[in-house]
Amino acid sequence: MAKIKNQPLLKKTMLHTNTLLSVLFTIIASINALHAQPKEAIKEQFIKDIYSTALGDGQCHDWLRTLCKDIGHRLSGSSGADKAVQWTKSILDTLGLDSVWLQPVLVPHWERGSKERAFVYGSSRKNKYELNVLALGGSVGTNGQKIQGNVVEAKSWSDLERLGEQGIKGKIVLFNRPMDPTRIRSFEAYGGAVDQRVSGASKAAKYGAIAVLVRSMTQNIDPWPHTGSLQYDSAYAQIPAVAISTEDAERLSKLIKKDEKLTVALQLNCKRLPDAPSFNVIGEIKGSITPNEIILTGGHLDSWDVGEGAHDDGAGCVQSMEVLRILKKLNYQPQKTIRCVLFMNEENGLRGGKIYASEAARKGETHFCAIETDAGGFTPRGFTFDAANEVFEPLFEKVKTLRPYFEPYHLSLNPGGSGADISPLKPQGGLLCGYYPDSQRYFDFHHTAADIFENVNKRELELGAASITTLIYLLDGL
Amino acid sequence: MAKIKNQPLLKKTMLHTNTLLSVLFTIIASINALHAQPKEAIKEQFIKDIYSTALGDGQCHDWLRTLCKDIGHRLSGSSGADKAVQWTKSILDTLGLDSVWLQPVLVPHWERGSKERAFVYGSSRKNKYELNVLALGGSVGTNGQKIQGNVVEAKSWSDLERLGEQGIKGKIVLFNRPMDPTRIRSFEAYGGAVDQRVSGASKAAKYGAIAVLVRSMTQNIDPWPHTGSLQYDSAYAQIPAVAISTEDAERLSKLIKKDEKLTVALQLNCKRLPDAPSFNVIGEIKGSITPNEIILTGGHLDSWDVGEGAHDDGAGCVQSMEVLRILKKLNYQPQKTIRCVLFMNEENGLRGGKIYASEAARKGETHFCAIETDAGGFTPRGFTFDAANEVFEPLFEKVKTLRPYFEPYHLSLNPGGSGADISPLKPQGGLLCGYYPDSQRYFDFHHTAADIFENVNKRELELGAASITTLIYLLDGL
Repeated sequence: MAKIKNQPLLKKTMLHTNTLLSVLFTIIASINALHAQPKEAIKEQFIKDIYSTALGDGQCHDWLRTLCKDIGHRLSGSSGADKAVQWTKSILDTLGLDSVWLQPVLVPHWERGSKERAFVYGSSRKNKYELNVLALGGSVGTNGQKIQGNVVEAKSWSDLERLGEQGIKGKIVLFNRPMDPTRIRSFEAYGGAVDQRVSGASKAAKYGAIAVLVRSMTQNIDPWPHTGSLQYDSAYAQIPAVAISTEDAERLSKLIKKDEKLTVALQLNCKRLPDAPSFNVIGEIKGSITPNEIILTGGHLDSWDVGEGAHDDGAGCVQSMEVLRILKKLNYQPQKTIRCVLFMNEENGLRGGKIYASEAARKGETHFCAIETDAGGFTPRGFTFDAANEVFEPLFEKVKTLRPYFEPYHLSLNPGGSGADISPLKPQGGLLCGYYPDSQRYFDFHHTAADIFENVNKRELELGAASITTLIYLLDGL
Repeated sequence: MAKIKNQPLLKKTMLHTNTLLSVLFTIIASINALHAQPKEAIKEQFIKDIYSTALGDGQCHDWLRTLCKDIGHRLSGSSGADKAVQWTKSILDTLGLDSVWLQPVLVPHWERGSKERAFVYGSSRKNKYELNVLALGGSVGTNGQKIQGNVVEAKSWSDLERLGEQGIKGKIVLFNRPMDPTRIRSFEAYGGAVDQRVSGASKAAKYGAIAVLVRSMTQNIDPWPHTGSLQYDSAYAQIPAVAISTEDAERLSKLIKKDEKLTVALQLNCKRLPDAPSFNVIGEIKGSITPNEIILTGGHLDSWDVGEGAHDDGAGCVQSMEVLRILKKLNYQPQKTIRCVLFMNEENGLRGGKIYASEAARKGETHFCAIETDAGGFTPRGFTFDAANEVFEPLFEKVKTLRPYFEPYHLSLNPGGSGADISPLKPQGGLLCGYYPDSQRYFDFHHTAADIFENVNKRELELGAASITTLIYLLDGL
């Protein structure tokens, strides 16, 4: 109920006018209150319905099982990626959406080939053991040969400089700077270590290294090598690069200190093939009032070629599909267009994200908000929001008004990063949003053979889908 | 720096006085600022040190490995419980605490005996299959015999009443009301279903049932029977009670509908033995200013006799021990006494919690706050606080002032439940607090063979220990 300010009573006519005005105000305020109350209650009830549908009658966990177990991993250009495109489209086709289509995109095509191998030799050459390695995505192979070299360790870029050409030429560099376990958000620790994986090969090649071994990106000491993409600097020779587990990195580090003549031999069978045709998979419910305003929810369909791409990012794909299924199931008629996009090639090229943004610009589409879910199928903690500098404040002010709806679900709405696939949309001026699940277990699985369906918890996955659906429902009403 | 309001300059003397006052104000404000700033900064830095110690140099995960893998499960009265008492005391003895002691407590002693067995027979008696069951804790056995009966299903207490003596007498009742998957906090769903496990046997015995099968307490459909305690009502016959998995409950429910003559045969070898001597394990750092004010952190050392009691409640025990280790490692001199209590017999009697509270009353001890960690070793979400009605508000007002310290760690401080072991302290007037980790995965493991060390994540466990240490550090300064 709005407060009516008391007016000083100066004249009878004034009193009369004031009384009339006051009554009018009271009536208007009452009508507003009547409208406001049920609106809130309706929204809260609809959110409850979203959660009940996601948790009591969810589909995304079953979908993830199929994506992981029947299709498996799906690196860009692979037959797994092709199957994933066809299958997810076939599922979207069953949801009664207004449109489902494939958006063509040419993607890089790198293949691991037959399993890479590595052996550690002590100076006596008797104490050989095999090292479990994974070529980094994009690495060159060894042309059917073994390459072998003495191993030197660098825990920092300054270690590398100090070693210099004299210490590195003809050798293999072990990059062994751990992810900082004392960082609370594991993505921050990742950000503080992943430069070794991305740039290590070229930085070592600058000093004449013949190959690099990179400590895996995880805060755990575990036996899994974690792959991921590298970038070669065109100024230097392209040398082979592999990930080794944190357990092996710790062990090798100790061995090197005892035996300076220790060598490692590597054989990598990976190669880069010509770019391959592929697709982003898109489905949408058309907006009933402002169809040209789009709210996007997306994940990436490609994955690394080990494990099943369950958390990264099968989870994000099935959650995005589930958003549309839930809204259709609840007969929701959106004002804006709600679109699910399964991007191709996030892992090693971002071609899907780039083509999507350029096509959006070409068609003059407006993205009110693009949400990416690519941080694993873990228990939800909230959402983080971003936008081009000049538009962020007014947009985020609107978002903040939604916070009370998320309180019962313990979800926060804060400024922060969004997602790689949607980042090319940023210059177009809409909101970008990252779904933010708990990050503690993400690097137990990230880019490893352990990223499988069994390691995704059904309820945590479903709660994520419910959270994203809720956010989209509320954004649609802004 | 406090803002000094400009005063109107009326007279010279006034000006003089004002100037003097202003200078004085500025000095006082500056001193306050000097005092306030570093105090905050010191606290924030100490909290960072707590997290760095817990995450970078933590002990609790290794301790949990020993407790689970070398000692294993530890039901009250068992040799595992004895070993756990001796081993945890031996660890506390190494931490340089001011006192470590064992508090005697007589506990109920129930034994499962050799593995219970159950078989399902269709009316043709050909289609027999074995059912994986777990006797509920405290259940009577079948005296070396098999008992067999027709199965009737009750999804609610009103189903049971409707069946009545005519439908139940001489039969076995399947209690099959699911935990509600649409409840966000899984403990609420547990609270809405666990009455079947606790009271089902006596409520069915009232109508002449010969045994009960109880659907396991989990929101999942999984193959694990979940045990847990029951309570017999002395008004009725004590009949055998077993848990069956949710998968088996769903299957059996379908079979009953097809075949009304379906029977189940049960053989249970469990029995109640005379009460056994045992102990609460206690260690403390004496307060330097108010040693008679105690801040307690505790979990329960006993567990069910399946799995390894990893989440329930090995995690809480090693976290509570870790709190003292971290504070000692950081050379923290508490004002109040900081005490770790590993309670015996939470699962089937609460004798440890009861004796602890009565001894505290006898000695005239004051518990400023008792914290229980007994909700699993999952990622931290915050703490919930409780106290006797008449003291809650003023106490919680103080707690609220600590919220800003927890914001960087995404932890909430809210009113709510605490823990079973510390509940007998409530009438003594202090704060009670429950450590509140994320609850989504708890009922994947609770009271099953799957509650093993491997299912506890190292970082999540360590973050819990860091959170509790932080709370205790801040409560000590209140």
